[in-house]
Amino acid sequence: MPSNLQIVLKSRPQGEPTVDNFELKTSQTPELQDGQVLVKHQFLSLDPYMRGRMNDGKSYAQPQPLDEVMIGGTVGVVQDSAHPKFAPGDAVVGMGGWQTYSVVDGNAPGMLRKVSTEHIPLSAYLGPVGMPGVTAWVGLTQICEPKAGETVVVSAASGAVGTAVGQLAKARGCRVVGIAGGPDKCNFVVNEAGFDACVDYKAHPDAKSLYRAIKEATPDGVDCYFENVGGAIMEAVLLRTNAFARIAVCGMIAGYNGEPLPLQNPSLILVNRLKIQGFIVSEHMDLWPQALQELGTMVATGKLKYRETVAQGLAAAPEAFLGLLKGKNFGKQLVKIAD
Amino acid sequence: MPSNLQIVLKSRPQGEPTVDNFELKTSQTPELQDGQVLVKHQFLSLDPYMRGRMNDGKSYAQPQPLDEVMIGGTVGVVQDSAHPKFAPGDAVVGMGGWQTYSVVDGNAPGMLRKVSTEHIPLSAYLGPVGMPGVTAWVGLTQICEPKAGETVVVSAASGAVGTAVGQLAKARGCRVVGIAGGPDKCNFVVNEAGFDACVDYKAHPDAKSLYRAIKEATPDGVDCYFENVGGAIMEAVLLRTNAFARIAVCGMIAGYNGEPLPLQNPSLILVNRLKIQGFIVSEHMDLWPQALQELGTMVATGKLKYRETVAQGLAAAPEAFLGLLKGKNFGKQLVKIAD
Repeated sequence: MPSNLQIVLKSRPQGEPTVDNFELKTSQTPELQDGQVLVKHQFLSLDPYMRGRMNDGKSYAQPQPLDEVMIGGTVGVVQDSAHPKFAPGDAVVGMGGWQTYSVVDGNAPGMLRKVSTEHIPLSAYLGPVGMPGVTAWVGLTQICEPKAGETVVVSAASGAVGTAVGQLAKARGCRVVGIAGGPDKCNFVVNEAGFDACVDYKAHPDAKSLYRAIKEATPDGVDCYFENVGGAIMEAVLLRTNAFARIAVCGMIAGYNGEPLPLQNPSLILVNRLKIQGFIVSEHMDLWPQALQELGTMVATGKLKYRETVAQGLAAAPEAFLGLLKGKNFGKQLVKIAD
Repeated sequence: MPSNLQIVLKSRPQGEPTVDNFELKTSQTPELQDGQVLVKHQFLSLDPYMRGRMNDGKSYAQPQPLDEVMIGGTVGVVQDSAHPKFAPGDAVVGMGGWQTYSVVDGNAPGMLRKVSTEHIPLSAYLGPVGMPGVTAWVGLTQICEPKAGETVVVSAASGAVGTAVGQLAKARGCRVVGIAGGPDKCNFVVNEAGFDACVDYKAHPDAKSLYRAIKEATPDGVDCYFENVGGAIMEAVLLRTNAFARIAVCGMIAGYNGEPLPLQNPSLILVNRLKIQGFIVSEHMDLWPQALQELGTMVATGKLKYRETVAQGLAAAPEAFLGLLKGKNFGKQLVKIAD
């Protein structure tokens, strides 16, 4: 059995995490039991939700246990199989975690899914045709419910979720405005992903300037807002909401390290009759097939553009994850584990 | 034609309003034109929404114009009629404003509605069988959507809206917890209106103590919250929300004079997958018949208890309105205009 490189959570961060919270280990992959499948990971997905799991407090999911392999989505190839439905060479998506190999129960529902790489690159199953894409689809179609001609704003617009939100909204005939950090990301959002406008929040460090920039980009106000960030950006967008605007709260990465993010004007909820709703994609499993069908078609036909930032080698995962929390990645943050 | 006592808005308040913002005037009621109806008001309704109208800023409704009669719901009796559908002696509900008489276009849809006082007292059409009752019904049934066994919390629980919210929720098999100011209001809420518990926020001036009291009253957490107040009370209730809790934002009277009401923990929206939605009852006219049917039946059969505070004479309206904004009223705040 091959030896397996793994990263475990060594300690819980106080505030901002550091590489010292993680530990690299080596173990042996066990012999396969009947029904099990050995998967060699090609890519690991790094996602903001992982920061929440590192805490011990009450949240919507169980905390990541200490000294166990970090949770994470993976794509890879079956190496060995004791399950009739999986054969060596099959491309598969799963939750293999931060490690080179995983041994998966092939009978557990939803744990391992065979995918085709004929028209869709394997890594895309961790991005636009995976959890981030479905997250975009669920928040946009189930909470924002945009109508053609409405204005949709999305924060972290060049990220894995944000790019999908904007392009799904464009496909529905909306005016789409992204908010992203820096001219490169804004350039991608407008010129490659086809958004109508992009606000570079880093160019507007004070609240008034940020508000003016968002106002300029949303001359008809904001009907839908897909929130990935929270804090000052959310504040500014809410001030531009039209009556009956819908806000899907997918993430508040600005506060993931425990920073307070008070909302200054909750009275806007009443004045503008807003609907603000938080959601978690894993609680909408019934919608995944429908979402993946639209997303897969768009990626396969080149209609959904996306970016990836790929860190090389499992050992680079902690550093890449810390960068993700600071917005250093551009598009979907992946770790290349093996070929 | 009788002489008409009127109260107009003389100036816009900066922060807390005073009696000097209002002016008492006398005018003559005009001769009736064809289709018009002269109504003598018995009761004027005072409501928190009026504070918002006194401002000039952008809100969901047009500002109250200066030097014009203050807007307000009224019940009264037809004195004279040039409209075939209305006859002297008819009991009617309308938006007659802060004055003794109003002249109403009997053809304008929804401006004047004949009501029966056989089983329902006339004043109740300004409370549980009027706008406040329908407000309770719409927020509860359309946004909170409580299921039997769930816990419903309502702030300003002894108020015109709050008492109806709680009793409508009890009728749906919920555990109902009110939040009100002072032992008398809490006593009414529990012992007359039949709530399961009441938290006296005045007995808990600091946030921790208030939270503990709410926690004690909601051992299974909070599934629905009907918000009339905002600020520290909203903050404390949100901390007790269960996953997928629904919050109907009807009012934020704590901030009506411009006090900032920052929401300290908007990340709860995500962590608990909350739905927070603001609404205005006048935008749901299609639901009024259904709501009034349930509310009217409950009042006529004695199943919906409510309190009224009645100020005597139109001249007392400004003082009574200022008291309402401070929670000095107990139940529906009315002004007795004439017999």
